[in-house]
Amino acid sequence: MASIKPSVPKGTRDFSPAEMAKRNFIFDTIKSVFRKYGYQQIETPSMENLSTLTGKYGDEGDKLIFKILNSGDFLSKANPAALADNDSNALTASISEKALRYDLTVPFARYVVQHQNDITFPFKRFQVQPVWRADRPQKGRYREFYQCDADVVGSDSLLNEAEFIQIYDEALSKLGLQDFTIKINNRKILSGIAQVIDKSDSIIDLTVAIDKLDKIGLDGVTAELLTKGFTEADIEQLKPVILLQGTNTEKLTSLREALATSEIGLKGCEELETVLNYINIAPLQKATLELDITLARGLNYYTGAIFEVKTNEAQMGSIGGGGRYDDLTGMFGLKNLTGAGISFGADRIYDVMEELNLFPTEAVQSTQVLICCFDKNAELYALPLLQRLRALDVKAELYPAGAKIKKQMEYANSKQIAYTILIGSEEMESGLLAFKDMNSGEQQKLNIAQITEKLQ
Amino acid sequence: MASIKPSVPKGTRDFSPAEMAKRNFIFDTIKSVFRKYGYQQIETPSMENLSTLTGKYGDEGDKLIFKILNSGDFLSKANPAALADNDSNALTASISEKALRYDLTVPFARYVVQHQNDITFPFKRFQVQPVWRADRPQKGRYREFYQCDADVVGSDSLLNEAEFIQIYDEALSKLGLQDFTIKINNRKILSGIAQVIDKSDSIIDLTVAIDKLDKIGLDGVTAELLTKGFTEADIEQLKPVILLQGTNTEKLTSLREALATSEIGLKGCEELETVLNYINIAPLQKATLELDITLARGLNYYTGAIFEVKTNEAQMGSIGGGGRYDDLTGMFGLKNLTGAGISFGADRIYDVMEELNLFPTEAVQSTQVLICCFDKNAELYALPLLQRLRALDVKAELYPAGAKIKKQMEYANSKQIAYTILIGSEEMESGLLAFKDMNSGEQQKLNIAQITEKLQ
Repeated sequence: MASIKPSVPKGTRDFSPAEMAKRNFIFDTIKSVFRKYGYQQIETPSMENLSTLTGKYGDEGDKLIFKILNSGDFLSKANPAALADNDSNALTASISEKALRYDLTVPFARYVVQHQNDITFPFKRFQVQPVWRADRPQKGRYREFYQCDADVVGSDSLLNEAEFIQIYDEALSKLGLQDFTIKINNRKILSGIAQVIDKSDSIIDLTVAIDKLDKIGLDGVTAELLTKGFTEADIEQLKPVILLQGTNTEKLTSLREALATSEIGLKGCEELETVLNYINIAPLQKATLELDITLARGLNYYTGAIFEVKTNEAQMGSIGGGGRYDDLTGMFGLKNLTGAGISFGADRIYDVMEELNLFPTEAVQSTQVLICCFDKNAELYALPLLQRLRALDVKAELYPAGAKIKKQMEYANSKQIAYTILIGSEEMESGLLAFKDMNSGEQQKLNIAQITEKLQ
Repeated sequence: MASIKPSVPKGTRDFSPAEMAKRNFIFDTIKSVFRKYGYQQIETPSMENLSTLTGKYGDEGDKLIFKILNSGDFLSKANPAALADNDSNALTASISEKALRYDLTVPFARYVVQHQNDITFPFKRFQVQPVWRADRPQKGRYREFYQCDADVVGSDSLLNEAEFIQIYDEALSKLGLQDFTIKINNRKILSGIAQVIDKSDSIIDLTVAIDKLDKIGLDGVTAELLTKGFTEADIEQLKPVILLQGTNTEKLTSLREALATSEIGLKGCEELETVLNYINIAPLQKATLELDITLARGLNYYTGAIFEVKTNEAQMGSIGGGGRYDDLTGMFGLKNLTGAGISFGADRIYDVMEELNLFPTEAVQSTQVLICCFDKNAELYALPLLQRLRALDVKAELYPAGAKIKKQMEYANSKQIAYTILIGSEEMESGLLAFKDMNSGEQQKLNIAQITEKLQ
């Protein structure tokens, strides 16, 4: 019987040892920074009750949730009307009670509400787990991918916003990025802008248009705004805001003038100033912090600060984003719990680091030394050395004897092992083993003490 | 509208920060040992094609696989006959193409076959990921749980078996276990035992009965064997084997005598002796290695060594197991690839460590120091100190000002933070901050340099 070559489902991926080493380097770095800032890890189940997820991501989102078929005789509880109508959509809830998580935010909200009596607030948690979306797969878009989130709930202090900026700065600097921009905006400023031209109801049209400034220029933005019911006078009044320039402080000054009549707008300016001031006191390593009022991501969701991170070293969409929200847990009945959070785009960071060749050799190296034996006797001779190296925390392997030395060397090369030790009868007699640097090709005769010294 | 308190699906768990810290300690320790022995991590997707999983775990296993409902209008491709018959089982394959992985072994086999041209053999991989089973949940049995496996494929060397024993020994010793037994057996010895009494066809009945020796004694085993068609003479001949005693070497000697007429039995003895010899050359730290011919787990699967690990410090089933198999990848068309593997039972190890109080304080501690401010001015004063501590890799937090100091202390206690620094106007004036050891309650007035020194 001919067998079919096995494969993985569309939009999912295997990760090889080399890929995992790089992914671990990214996740470990980010996690270590989260921890340093007092964030603690939680994990939630891969599957949630379908009712926990439904309705939280809009109609389009609901369709993209992977549902799990009930076990056993699921048809016994199937909705007969839906079956008769051949209505897949209506049938789903009766044959599927559980679904795979779609993001980490809704499960986190569920977690906070469910465990509210055991949690000490402010609660600073991070979570690094896969999520699943039944999206059409395409380059850079997968049906299973990791999200990497940190959130604090139960604290309205703007120190949290400042710390998120520092976390981005420290984590991405540690990963080796040299030039990246953390963009910051505030939802209250956007509200203020809409308010001063008396178009609070059109805030989405307004921000969508302003967001395109980079691509279509002022003329394009003007044209779009006119089609959306904004007047020439509105646009004239908006110009200083749309074309905001200068340092962050200069921008803030201009904004304060433009938003002088809007209480909420001025509140946004004040919040921004506080955050900028915290950062001035504790300066950033590599990041540029840029006030960008065109930044409007998650507009329906964020109520205060809005963040987005971009690298300036490669062509790539945002590699991080977040903001403050005032009602994360309301959907599960716990009202008025304020919070803020950020997310790292691990897959994109991976691609940037690959392009810029930023993965350090040690991060991707697995075994440090391979002991190659000519025969079974050498193997027995090698075992105590192997154990000694491992006791010193040297990652070491002994290639089982029997294979030709050439094959053993190929093995070392494919695993990018830095050193090899060759042991044959001559070496055992003299006590001097052939120690080879696999990068330079240089080979020396060393005794066990010298080898141990070198590898430690 | 009253809202329902949210919950997680039956048999699944949230992991709190305290639980995650302990779980990470276990997984990080095991992973570091895997790496030290040359094993490299891979990850496979949570979902596999249903056809990849079906038929690999027996009929009972197939029922326990969580199936994912096809997206969109899944009824359009539903099997009409199955629908007409109300046959859930027959319908499944037509409305579900994907399923959640049931273990790590089948996805690993699929991985090896799919990527065989990119893999250098011997391939030593480890994998730590959740698996899902639609089992009836009960104490200690979950529908989502992590497996933690290491396997080597493409090497028949018994060095691998010896290294698995060392890996168990090193990892469990590092976790703080003081007294545990690694039981070893060999499938070929079991075959030999059946062969010498000419009952090769009844090997399963034989091993199932012998396996109960501890519980039902020799009389019980005898009675069971008689009901399964074994004769008194068979049992008489088996007695020396069933009642095997003494050191591993003595047991081997007895076995060699008893199995003298069985080629495969003697081969099993030889393999075992080789492994024991490797371990003699490189002795174990804390583990006792025990030859136990009643060990028969995975009989249909294992072809050589069989392992099982038990703690002697707590009442608990096996905390690890594994063995050698000769045909892992045959199910996907790649024949004759030998391999061996082991698994750690992370949930059980967690329970044992909890019972024996083995989690080190540093492992479960999150933040090292909390800075508590009396007011906003103190906050600004504290920021550079906070940054300095973090630059020294001290895990440090600043509690946002505004809360009463009592509440800030409660926060420190709930997070098990070791030290607090109190800053008010007096402290800022004198430059001497109140530094408190939260365990002893002792409080000192120290300047920033002294505090930095203490925490480094």
